[in-house]
Amino acid sequence: MSDALLTELRAALGKEAVITDADVTSGYSRDMMPLAPVGTPLAVVLPVDTEGVRAVVRACYEAGVPIVPRGAGSGLSGAANAIDGCVVLVLTKLNEIVEIDPGNRLAVVQPGVVNLDFRGAVEKHGLFYPPDPSSYDWCTIGGNLATNAGGLCCVKYGVTTDSVLGLEVVLADGEILNTGRRTVKGVAGYDLTKLFIGSEGTLGVITKATLALRPLPQAPGTFVAGFSSTEAAGEAVARVVSEGLVPSLMEIMDATSIKASEAYLKTDLGTGSDCQALLLCQSDSGGEVARRELAALEQICTDCGADMVYATDDIAEGNMLLQARRVVLTALEHYGIWLTDDVCVPRTRIAELIAGCDRISREVGLRIAVVGHAGDGNMHPTIVYQPDSPDEFARAQQAFDDILAVGLELGGTVTGEHGVGKIKREWLEKEIGPVGMRVHREIKNALDPTGVFNPGSMFSPS
Amino acid sequence: MSDALLTELRAALGKEAVITDADVTSGYSRDMMPLAPVGTPLAVVLPVDTEGVRAVVRACYEAGVPIVPRGAGSGLSGAANAIDGCVVLVLTKLNEIVEIDPGNRLAVVQPGVVNLDFRGAVEKHGLFYPPDPSSYDWCTIGGNLATNAGGLCCVKYGVTTDSVLGLEVVLADGEILNTGRRTVKGVAGYDLTKLFIGSEGTLGVITKATLALRPLPQAPGTFVAGFSSTEAAGEAVARVVSEGLVPSLMEIMDATSIKASEAYLKTDLGTGSDCQALLLCQSDSGGEVARRELAALEQICTDCGADMVYATDDIAEGNMLLQARRVVLTALEHYGIWLTDDVCVPRTRIAELIAGCDRISREVGLRIAVVGHAGDGNMHPTIVYQPDSPDEFARAQQAFDDILAVGLELGGTVTGEHGVGKIKREWLEKEIGPVGMRVHREIKNALDPTGVFNPGSMFSPS
Repeated sequence: MSDALLTELRAALGKEAVITDADVTSGYSRDMMPLAPVGTPLAVVLPVDTEGVRAVVRACYEAGVPIVPRGAGSGLSGAANAIDGCVVLVLTKLNEIVEIDPGNRLAVVQPGVVNLDFRGAVEKHGLFYPPDPSSYDWCTIGGNLATNAGGLCCVKYGVTTDSVLGLEVVLADGEILNTGRRTVKGVAGYDLTKLFIGSEGTLGVITKATLALRPLPQAPGTFVAGFSSTEAAGEAVARVVSEGLVPSLMEIMDATSIKASEAYLKTDLGTGSDCQALLLCQSDSGGEVARRELAALEQICTDCGADMVYATDDIAEGNMLLQARRVVLTALEHYGIWLTDDVCVPRTRIAELIAGCDRISREVGLRIAVVGHAGDGNMHPTIVYQPDSPDEFARAQQAFDDILAVGLELGGTVTGEHGVGKIKREWLEKEIGPVGMRVHREIKNALDPTGVFNPGSMFSPS
Repeated sequence: MSDALLTELRAALGKEAVITDADVTSGYSRDMMPLAPVGTPLAVVLPVDTEGVRAVVRACYEAGVPIVPRGAGSGLSGAANAIDGCVVLVLTKLNEIVEIDPGNRLAVVQPGVVNLDFRGAVEKHGLFYPPDPSSYDWCTIGGNLATNAGGLCCVKYGVTTDSVLGLEVVLADGEILNTGRRTVKGVAGYDLTKLFIGSEGTLGVITKATLALRPLPQAPGTFVAGFSSTEAAGEAVARVVSEGLVPSLMEIMDATSIKASEAYLKTDLGTGSDCQALLLCQSDSGGEVARRELAALEQICTDCGADMVYATDDIAEGNMLLQARRVVLTALEHYGIWLTDDVCVPRTRIAELIAGCDRISREVGLRIAVVGHAGDGNMHPTIVYQPDSPDEFARAQQAFDDILAVGLELGGTVTGEHGVGKIKREWLEKEIGPVGMRVHREIKNALDPTGVFNPGSMFSPS
């Protein structure tokens, strides 16, 4: 059976596009989440076009062999991890920017285009594609669509789904579904586009996307504030929201993150030794408006008791400050292996989440650094453990779950942007309950009745 | 069977909440679209809470009697029109604003709240709910959700779905599904929220919604430009888009609309007698930015050959100019009955759509006024006919369809914001094709297997 499938795949895609060498396939078998289970695939296939994807889907559907679709593998939920006996469907070779239409501010792309490459291409037309996950220099648009990826832009510009007009999707039986349209509005039928976005490869394979673009914003001005208590920083975030400010970026770093970042960059962020939280904000509104926004942010932070405030419209200096945020995960590798979590809480509850992480850190006896997108409440508490210690790994797993429980208690969600994948299935159930699960399974069964697409990711079939 | 159902409904809701008097039920049996078929309901029911809705759904589900959910009846697609023997489920008595949370910029509302009432309530907190369909002074939030309503705000702020965080939905068997969350980001599971929005009452009954709010924008500045050719006006719209301007409102009126509006308001818009198109724009960015945006709009319109340009930051004067746009449909009643269409085309193709409407007008020998949301390509060509002429009505129907064909030819959609309902079922099929229809039916059958919800609206079951 397997041999027949491999023969069929080779006939459809060419021999080089079907890999069974375990040394090579292992490199395509997992994403960046160490907690997630990993299986051994039957094969890894790399089609170059939609017809190739259709051939793979048809062959696997007929053979009853599951497909795990995959982009660059930058995911943090194990959604793209192989399961035993599956075919890993790699989309990176469908990497063409098909069209950029400045007159309608849209573009058509294949899923394997790297986020940063796409950003650069549209920037030449004075256009802007907002979604900017941390891995934007290597993650693909297809992976961004499958996970409904976020990033630093979300506080002002939303998540991936907010930038998508339509999709081309290969369904379980190999038929091609076109969703959405090229117009910015449209209500003809159900919103299938947004159903497939964030479905983590469980409903179909996205082979093309029509993306909405925005005018390129102004070069950002940057503002930082240091606080000697996380409560004060949390209060400042809540005030920014309630007073109607919409910065283009608003990140928070706790004391552990600040120290790790400073050590790694061999620099001093000027926060002082008793700094417990740093807020890092930008405005891309330009000119007088940006200055007014940054001044308002400064006023709020000062009112909330910031010990240090600093604003600059120097681009290089702004990039340096942003770099302190961007390097946190890398900086934490100095202390061990990291395991990053992803909870999103109401924006009034950020300080409570950080306090909860602090308590959990003491309980499990492991360093937990909290960084996150304060402007939208999406926090990434990151647990550090020693790779050679099974005991520390077990405690890290415990902390990972405890943080999710705190997030739910605070009225939040167990994943703001990384997804459910193979690590948060039981947490999805806790969050959405039995009726929600039932509806998920009804939709899954309707569109993928034999369970060919990424079975066991997001939720178990029955 | 019917008697047993009525008895059960009366027991659950109280006698007054179950209406069978044909004189009364007829008032709840149709929306504002004269083309749509209308049936005679078994009863009209007006529950006052979610439990009442559940009781209605359970009873009808058991009895095999279809439910047509309904808000205020301002719809323009017949989606809320009764079918023979159905129960019309009126949601207007679930009209409580449950919560306004300025700290998280969100609100929780029941479906029967009138859009304008809700806008007013959040405005007191300095907050803004963008979706503003033309009927905003009487349409309900529930109807807006069911149709994914748009309005004048969409060019800058998007449509209804862009302002919704979560829903409470009564499913076919009476179970309650909670979708989404109170956080601004979240990817736990499929995006069921956006699946129900715009589903026109065919998948469930929305009984509560968590809505995202924005900071209240600045008072708008207003700009108008008159053109002696629609091509020039269309070119100006395309240039506004491609040059990255995002006005908060950008409407277009053709010559027929301008004349009707001027006659109705007994005023002169200053466009001159050979004016073929008027662009009406606003910026709500405030201060210097608004002045800069309006100046850029003026420059583009002048470059494109506008014969008249005029800008004002006087609120009253801006409202007067906007009034000229808002009264067009009423003004057209001077000439006969109107039938308004709803197509959305790529923003570069607006002039071609207007030219197509002009051609169709001559072909069918009826007046067609084109007004629309130029900034997002969503046009409302409005056909005027004599109520006592079956021949004119038939020609109006012909024009209605011909306009949709032109919209599709231009790469557009057959409905930008009004929905499919009972008048565009075959057009939905033309737009999305057999695979799209198959997926629609698969989802409908998965969530509503017995077809209790609004059967025959949007598409036929099989």
